[in-house]
Amino acid sequence: MKLIIANKNYSTWSLRGWLALRGFNIDFDEVELALFTESFYAEIAKHSGAAKVPVLVDGDIAVWDSLAISEYVNDRYLDGKGWPQDVAQRAKARAVSAEMHSGFNALRNEMPMNIRGRRKISPSAACLNDIARIDQIWADQMKEFGNEGGWLFGEFSIADVMYAPVVLRFITYGVALSADAQKYAEQVMNSPAVQQWISESKSDTSIVSEDEAGVEKA
Amino acid sequence: MKLIIANKNYSTWSLRGWLALRGFNIDFDEVELALFTESFYAEIAKHSGAAKVPVLVDGDIAVWDSLAISEYVNDRYLDGKGWPQDVAQRAKARAVSAEMHSGFNALRNEMPMNIRGRRKISPSAACLNDIARIDQIWADQMKEFGNEGGWLFGEFSIADVMYAPVVLRFITYGVALSADAQKYAEQVMNSPAVQQWISESKSDTSIVSEDEAGVEKA
Repeated sequence: MKLIIANKNYSTWSLRGWLALRGFNIDFDEVELALFTESFYAEIAKHSGAAKVPVLVDGDIAVWDSLAISEYVNDRYLDGKGWPQDVAQRAKARAVSAEMHSGFNALRNEMPMNIRGRRKISPSAACLNDIARIDQIWADQMKEFGNEGGWLFGEFSIADVMYAPVVLRFITYGVALSADAQKYAEQVMNSPAVQQWISESKSDTSIVSEDEAGVEKA
Repeated sequence: MKLIIANKNYSTWSLRGWLALRGFNIDFDEVELALFTESFYAEIAKHSGAAKVPVLVDGDIAVWDSLAISEYVNDRYLDGKGWPQDVAQRAKARAVSAEMHSGFNALRNEMPMNIRGRRKISPSAACLNDIARIDQIWADQMKEFGNEGGWLFGEFSIADVMYAPVVLRFITYGVALSADAQKYAEQVMNSPAVQQWISESKSDTSIVSEDEAGVEKA
């Protein structure tokens, strides 16, 4: 099984696909392509018409999109344990995950991930709304599950696959969180999987210049 | 079970949540709220912090987001039959569904759904790319399944929940499709569920003025 991803310093969707495997201790090979290069598009086109990372190639099956990869891994390798086992909690986990998957565009545009960097910006009102909504989700879940595993729904789940990368954005841009939401940020930062990704992003010296404007080294 | 949606003429995500039930012949009550009104936000806030339609309220469980609603319905009421039963086809169906769920932003911005209207625009290059990619997905699937049920993966599935609303956009803006993709558009337009939605959108006279610029009556 092989996961095709892009530059570890910049690509939040790559991190999501990677966490969908590494976060559940599933073995896989990794292929890193440099974003926006010719070889990137040529390699991706072999597996998907969507022209996006991540792509999971499992024998004859190619799955693109981090949420679809997560559901595939849940189906095929986790016997459904990628989501909470309680039906109401599973519904909520899928709802907040889908909300991240299709939304928070202002946050994405204004705060691109750059793990190695630090940057000060003046967020738009829409971006501040996005931050407030994410803070609310994390804080609510920590009130319920902060002492039962520490992830959004207690044990690590696909909801964490979706939200963990946001913690790295918040650190780059110095976003202040409520006390409960901060507990979640610490849970993410203390996880071996995220620490491994951060470490690898620092040794990956490739540059995506459009995500480097105004950025200082951490 | 109650589905909260917005104006039928304009809200593609509402149509998706509705098709996730009606397309699988599941009974439900419907609550229509007018987009961007105070009562809209007040009612949604009772069930979800995401401030978006659709929301499915099933007893104590509230699920928001059309993809999360689809997965919930698949889990709870369809015994997994909302997706193709073959693991490779299911992976592909989830991948194209997730691609629609998070992408095609140019298409969405430039061609808002307006079932009652017709409008000529000059699409951007990004919008033309979106159209070409959707045409490719539909045409590829019709080559494989056009004679086996006629939906994207043969029988009606959640992938159709995601893509059917795009057919209505294409009609409003007069988008020309390849012959194979056109077969899919006809399959969608001939379905009783979509015909019911169209008919109800025509008797729903509410107006969202920001989606009416340059629009002529069909």
